[in-house]
Amino acid sequence: MSISTVSRVVNGKPGVSDDARQRVLAALDVLGYERPATLRNEPAGLVGLVVPELTNPVFPAFAQTIETLLAGHGFTPLLCTQSPGGTTEDEYVETLLHHKVDGIVFVSGRHADTEADPGRYRRLTSSGMPMVLINGYSPAIEAPFVSADDAAGVAMAVRHLVSLGHSRIGLVVGPRRFVPAQRKIDAFHEQLVAHGLADETTADEHVAISFYTVEGGQSAATRLLESGHTAILCASDVMALGALRAARQRGLSVPRDVSVIGYDDSPFVAWTNPPLTTVRQPIEAMARATVDTLVARIDGAPAQNSELLFDLELVVRESTAAAPH
Amino acid sequence: MSISTVSRVVNGKPGVSDDARQRVLAALDVLGYERPATLRNEPAGLVGLVVPELTNPVFPAFAQTIETLLAGHGFTPLLCTQSPGGTTEDEYVETLLHHKVDGIVFVSGRHADTEADPGRYRRLTSSGMPMVLINGYSPAIEAPFVSADDAAGVAMAVRHLVSLGHSRIGLVVGPRRFVPAQRKIDAFHEQLVAHGLADETTADEHVAISFYTVEGGQSAATRLLESGHTAILCASDVMALGALRAARQRGLSVPRDVSVIGYDDSPFVAWTNPPLTTVRQPIEAMARATVDTLVARIDGAPAQNSELLFDLELVVRESTAAAPH
Repeated sequence: MSISTVSRVVNGKPGVSDDARQRVLAALDVLGYERPATLRNEPAGLVGLVVPELTNPVFPAFAQTIETLLAGHGFTPLLCTQSPGGTTEDEYVETLLHHKVDGIVFVSGRHADTEADPGRYRRLTSSGMPMVLINGYSPAIEAPFVSADDAAGVAMAVRHLVSLGHSRIGLVVGPRRFVPAQRKIDAFHEQLVAHGLADETTADEHVAISFYTVEGGQSAATRLLESGHTAILCASDVMALGALRAARQRGLSVPRDVSVIGYDDSPFVAWTNPPLTTVRQPIEAMARATVDTLVARIDGAPAQNSELLFDLELVVRESTAAAPH
Repeated sequence: MSISTVSRVVNGKPGVSDDARQRVLAALDVLGYERPATLRNEPAGLVGLVVPELTNPVFPAFAQTIETLLAGHGFTPLLCTQSPGGTTEDEYVETLLHHKVDGIVFVSGRHADTEADPGRYRRLTSSGMPMVLINGYSPAIEAPFVSADDAAGVAMAVRHLVSLGHSRIGLVVGPRRFVPAQRKIDAFHEQLVAHGLADETTADEHVAISFYTVEGGQSAATRLLESGHTAILCASDVMALGALRAARQRGLSVPRDVSVIGYDDSPFVAWTNPPLTTVRQPIEAMARATVDTLVARIDGAPAQNSELLFDLELVVRESTAAAPH
């Protein structure tokens, strides 16, 4: 075997039979040489995937979809899930930088928290780290955002309840400091005013703020039921499970006495009692846009502040019905 | 500042004030020196976390718990979720090796498939890769296994149904080639025989095999309902959702006409209609044993074939009741 054959193989040039190519590579392997990258079927790099938690099923749904799409591009995600008292987002970012990730996807991260310092993200963008941020927008971060169009989602849900004759409609939602909550509250206010169900000074009486958990939803829904609301729009399906429980504990039947709408269309909410009417986040489409945008950034597309807004759809099941008389 | 001060700082020796230490480190940073590992708060390495998918909520529950515990030890998990037509387990393992992981956790991986070649795992163990395998046991792999005690779980569920007066009890389960399915089927046969509900030649008539999906559960449960079963034990909660749907489609009420038991106690099965009686996997305890065992292996404990079996518990909700007359 001539030196030139070896050279052709190592440099990926044509003009060598498959058989000869395999023999050269095998010989180099035996001698302990590392194959040149192009001949190694080298996986691409690592991508950080930061999610708040995996107990709300919308986050594993995002994680699995993003992971599968990344794998299609040869990238492997480093999963960072936060948990109470566990590793913080900032610590995870340090770890991701240490492991030299090629990019980071943040799902509902601190970028969504208007009280958090956006400096952490600015340091990343100014170092050139490709990143995409899902659900939560900040004009201060030079990066692409991918969001569900929450204003449109809330408008759709309120219209559905109004068309069923409800006039006492409440919103169960997380703290206002988070962008998606803020947008939902603002849109909800607007809708109440537009439908003549409140004016700007009273709209806030129909908003109950709590944690994004079953217990949080239950507590907030209880307050709304006590003030005579017959319809409750929840900012997550998990909170809606709490609203179902709050109604049951007060001896109210859903949907006969109270209508409940969830948010996300998480797996399995079709199986609740009653099956939950909910506002569906287009997880697949959002994940695809996220991965396409991130891969383009990694391949050299410039970073710029932008927000892709995705339409939601209302999935009507059995937890909403005509208002009681 | 003397050379000996710098030397003491860099070598992590005592006898230097905090202030001096910080100034030395800052000076080294400015000069572009890399801090010695012990002064860097260096995160520990990467750990591969291979799960079959994230749509069955038992897998995100394992992933989140394992991830949180690993983070407590400074490890970051590389998440590998399989999906139809996506990256295979073998391809993921190649990627994990490429990224030089310190260990791998396999959750319900191909190790559970008795027809799969255990060679892939043997190559890993013989290269010294620390790994722990969850749910699925093979005597051919020199590694620790962490499993739910499925035989005990099935026995508990069958006893509950027998105590409610059921004598036509069926099992909905995945293909026999997977160790957990095999163990469930064997335990189920034994229980039927022990309770005088079948003999060894007829026990298999009460087992319906299908996929671990809602549709799989529905199809298998339909077969059991057609042959007059009044109680159905499912090998996963997801399959149990299919069994609930199968009963409803035949105009049967759960639990009045048919009792259904799930398996795993996934988040949210308490919210199904009716709330699901299920066999709970002790995910937290299993995750803790997995991470403790893996970290011990990474720290040098020897690899050996062993299986830690974890007790399950029966969580009785409203999908089981006395057999119909």
